[in-house]
Amino acid sequence: MTATVPVTDRTRVRRLPKRGVYDFETIHAILDEALICHVGFVVDGAPVVIPTIHWRQGDTLYFHGSAASRMLRSLKNGVEACVTVTLLDGLVLARSAFHHSMNYRSVVVFGTAREVTDREEKLRALDALVEHVVKGRSKEVRASNEIELKQTLVLAMPIEEASAKIRTGGPVDDEEDYARPVWAGVLPMRLTPGEALPDAGVTAEVPEYVARYAR
Amino acid sequence: MTATVPVTDRTRVRRLPKRGVYDFETIHAILDEALICHVGFVVDGAPVVIPTIHWRQGDTLYFHGSAASRMLRSLKNGVEACVTVTLLDGLVLARSAFHHSMNYRSVVVFGTAREVTDREEKLRALDALVEHVVKGRSKEVRASNEIELKQTLVLAMPIEEASAKIRTGGPVDDEEDYARPVWAGVLPMRLTPGEALPDAGVTAEVPEYVARYAR
Repeated sequence: MTATVPVTDRTRVRRLPKRGVYDFETIHAILDEALICHVGFVVDGAPVVIPTIHWRQGDTLYFHGSAASRMLRSLKNGVEACVTVTLLDGLVLARSAFHHSMNYRSVVVFGTAREVTDREEKLRALDALVEHVVKGRSKEVRASNEIELKQTLVLAMPIEEASAKIRTGGPVDDEEDYARPVWAGVLPMRLTPGEALPDAGVTAEVPEYVARYAR
Repeated sequence: MTATVPVTDRTRVRRLPKRGVYDFETIHAILDEALICHVGFVVDGAPVVIPTIHWRQGDTLYFHGSAASRMLRSLKNGVEACVTVTLLDGLVLARSAFHHSMNYRSVVVFGTAREVTDREEKLRALDALVEHVVKGRSKEVRASNEIELKQTLVLAMPIEEASAKIRTGGPVDDEEDYARPVWAGVLPMRLTPGEALPDAGVTAEVPEYVARYAR
C-alpha cells in the first residue's frame, strides 16, 4: 500500500483528472529530481512568483535565501505560499495543431512556511541542500560558519496539501487525422550536464559526482 | 540604444541588483527560449502557481489552455497575474557550502490578462504557439477547426511591467577559501533533446526541425 496525501479542494486535479497523482512517493520523487521551484505568494493582494532552490527532507520542503530577501522575509511571517515544481520530459507532436502537448511531471504544494530557527535543524537542512543539488559534495566543502548561518534564512513547509500531475506517452489524435502523412511522436527532453568548467587556479581533478552528474 | 521597460517598485531587482536586466531584447530572448512558464494568481486570497506553455508575439505574452480550465477562467476575468520563466544554465560549485549557486536567466512579468476574442488574433496566436515550441511545424499539421478554436482559451498579457535576472560565471569564494584543495567551477546544464520517438504507424521521416531541435 502506498501512502497518499489527503486530497483537498485545491489540490484535486480537475482538468484531465487522470493526470492527478496523490501518493507521497511520486510527489517526493518529483521534488527530489527538480533543481528549482517557483514560489508564489501574495503581496498587497497581488501574486508574486519567484524561482528559487528547494530541497526535501522527509515530509518537509525547504527553501532558503538571504536573510535580506524580501520574499523570504514576507514568508517567514507565516504567509501562505504555493510552491510549484515542473520537470519537462518531452514535446508531444501531434498530427493537428490542437493536439500538440508536452510530457511533464509537476508538483504543487500549498502551505504556510515557518522559519527554521533551531540551530541543529538549520545545519542539517543546509547540508541536505548541498546534497540535493550535488550528491557527495557537502563533505568536501567548507561548512557554513556562524556569520553565514545568520545571513541565511531557511524556511520549511510541510508537504501535506500537495498533488502531482503527470503526462506521459505519445500524441492522441483525432481518428480522421491518423491518415495524415506528417511525422508525429515524442521528442524527449532532459536537463543534461555539459563539460565541467574548472574555476581559475583549480588543480584538483573533476570529482566523480561532477563528471557523472545526472538527475 | 536599447529599449528598456520602465522599472517599477516591484520589478526592480533588489537582492543583488547587479543581476537585474531591464531591456526588452533580453527579456524577450528569455521568454522565447523557455518552453514553460509558471503563472501565479490569487484565489480566495491565497496564491496558486500553475505551470503552462507561454509564447510571445511582439510585446505581448500569450498563454492558453482549455476553455474549461479553472486558471484560465479566473484570469480571463481580468485577474492580476505574475508570469515567471526560468532557464537553468549551470550549477556553480564553490569551495564553501555558502557560496554555492546556480547560473540562470529568469523573467518576471506582472500584469492583467485579457481573453483574445478576435478570431484573426486568436488564429495568429495559435500558429505562433506551435512555432514557438517547434519552429517549422505549424505549416505541416492540421490547423485548428472551429470547434477546437472554441475549446481553446487564449489569454494575452502586455510585457510592460517586467524584469529579467541573470547570473553567469564561476563561483565567488571568500579569499581564505581559495587555497582549499577541493574542485570548484561550473557544471553547465542545458535542456537537451533525446532521440525522436515516432508514434505507432508513422511512416514519414523525422523532419529536420525535429532531428536538429535546439532551443
